Amino acid sequence: MYEVAVIGTGPAGLSAVLTLKQLNRNFIWIGSKNLSPKINSASEISNYPGLINVSGREMKEVFLKQIASANIEITDLQVTGVYNLGDHYSILCGDNMFEAKTVILGLGVESIKPIEGELDYVGMGISYCATCDGMLYKNKDIIVYSTSKEFEHEVEFLASLANSVKFIPLYKEVNVKASNIEIIKDNPKKITKENKKMYMNFKDRTIEADGIFMLKQAISPSILVPGIESQNGHIVIDRECNTNMPGLFACGDCTGRPYQYAKAVGEGNVAAHSAFDYLNKN
Amino acid sequence: MYEVAVIGTGPAGLSAVLTLKQLNRNFIWIGSKNLSPKINSASEISNYPGLINVSGREMKEVFLKQIASANIEITDLQVTGVYNLGDHYSILCGDNMFEAKTVILGLGVESIKPIEGELDYVGMGISYCATCDGMLYKNKDIIVYSTSKEFEHEVEFLASLANSVKFIPLYKEVNVKASNIEIIKDNPKKITKENKKMYMNFKDRTIEADGIFMLKQAISPSILVPGIESQNGHIVIDRECNTNMPGLFACGDCTGRPYQYAKAVGEGNVAAHSAFDYLNKN
Repeated sequence: MYEVAVIGTGPAGLSAVLTLKQLNRNFIWIGSKNLSPKINSASEISNYPGLINVSGREMKEVFLKQIASANIEITDLQVTGVYNLGDHYSILCGDNMFEAKTVILGLGVESIKPIEGELDYVGMGISYCATCDGMLYKNKDIIVYSTSKEFEHEVEFLASLANSVKFIPLYKEVNVKASNIEIIKDNPKKITKENKKMYMNFKDRTIEADGIFMLKQAISPSILVPGIESQNGHIVIDRECNTNMPGLFACGDCTGRPYQYAKAVGEGNVAAHSAFDYLNKN
Repeated sequence: MYEVAVIGTGPAGLSAVLTLKQLNRNFIWIGSKNLSPKINSASEISNYPGLINVSGREMKEVFLKQIASANIEITDLQVTGVYNLGDHYSILCGDNMFEAKTVILGLGVESIKPIEGELDYVGMGISYCATCDGMLYKNKDIIVYSTSKEFEHEVEFLASLANSVKFIPLYKEVNVKASNIEIIKDNPKKITKENKKMYMNFKDRTIEADGIFMLKQAISPSILVPGIESQNGHIVIDRECNTNMPGLFACGDCTGRPYQYAKAVGEGNVAAHSAFDYLNKN
């Protein structure tokens, strides 16, 4: 059992793990080795103290060097659920499960709003995790919606199981290899369910399937962590980064605006100290 | 009238001004050109994202370079009072006065606790500002207490006015030039007042004077800003860095633990955004 599980490899998560390392805590850091997708696309960052007018890519290079220099490992998995088990937490990443006394969430924020109806059918026709739920749709017909090129391997994995895939990519330069994938370049407006069939509505058409996979970089906190208090899609925290659940802390963009590197880094530091205090008391 | 006055040149203040610059606000930045005294003495900083295992001096060099690169000026004065004048604030620095619609306090924190009795006689025998109150003690006998070598010019200035100076330096390598200064290397325990005379008590002796100057790097927020809400010496703020006074924000060590660069930088960023929002609404 870890003392702390830090989820998310953006600046908030980085700040938390650097501080936990300094405080000599036993932790696991789960997220993409590619760090936050936002960093890669940032053009120039001119208000982060210590880095003078850097591009997102330059900042990322410094962060990667710092992670290596501090001898910190990233467990490159997508977290699919965080569950409060009384005196500790269970963190599911598809088939992998980790346990920790405390959890620090640095989830980032969904830049794309949920589609109308999406949140009504989570676990009842809508899944956010290809590796977790793919087998449930073996030889069935599915819709796969994806916000980023980085999920193309998962789309192909799903196509290897399913009978047919209607694929809705929200990005350019799509490159998926499988004969049973039909690519639909259109913006979904609404999701409905009727007689066990899922329907995705576009402006001029409606498509049908047995299930829908929504592959996104940031999953809504209330879906990821059952029982967590959130408001307008942001996790509610106090100044010590406490959420409504004991031993569960949050930091960075997932706790609200301003969506800024400095703010994320500050909250990551505070969350690590709060986890440290919690461990000392419990 | 400035839109924002940022007080304090530590990492919180720096983060605030870099963000205000980016937001194209009209501001004044008041504090020491030597930045925060703490930075100079920090040995190794290993948990600040973006700077890999730097000494305090190295961090300071980067900060100074960044300030120059952003074309930001520091007004090198010590703030002696911040007053709420209804729709704006007046900031006194000895003989200089500035006005601003909003104020961001990045005051740091007093590492030395007030002496017993000190807070009872502020403005009634105890002064924190040599240039403001020096003339009141012309040809009188004074006690000057100082926590740092950087105030030696002020000690000499006071000696040029006063009849005699009993000087209590709390640091090593004292170098003040004036024939009427008596140096006392001892730790004061208590301050009292009787028949218009001020008394400073040590373990084995008591000294007497007409007034006492306390020259410190960080002045208690409640002394600097009449009416501000504080708790255990820290300014009370919410997650948006609002204090109890409209248009007055606080960030960094002065708002409480953890006393960390990342936390200070995060709050400085949030305070700047909150000042921006306040200006847009008022």
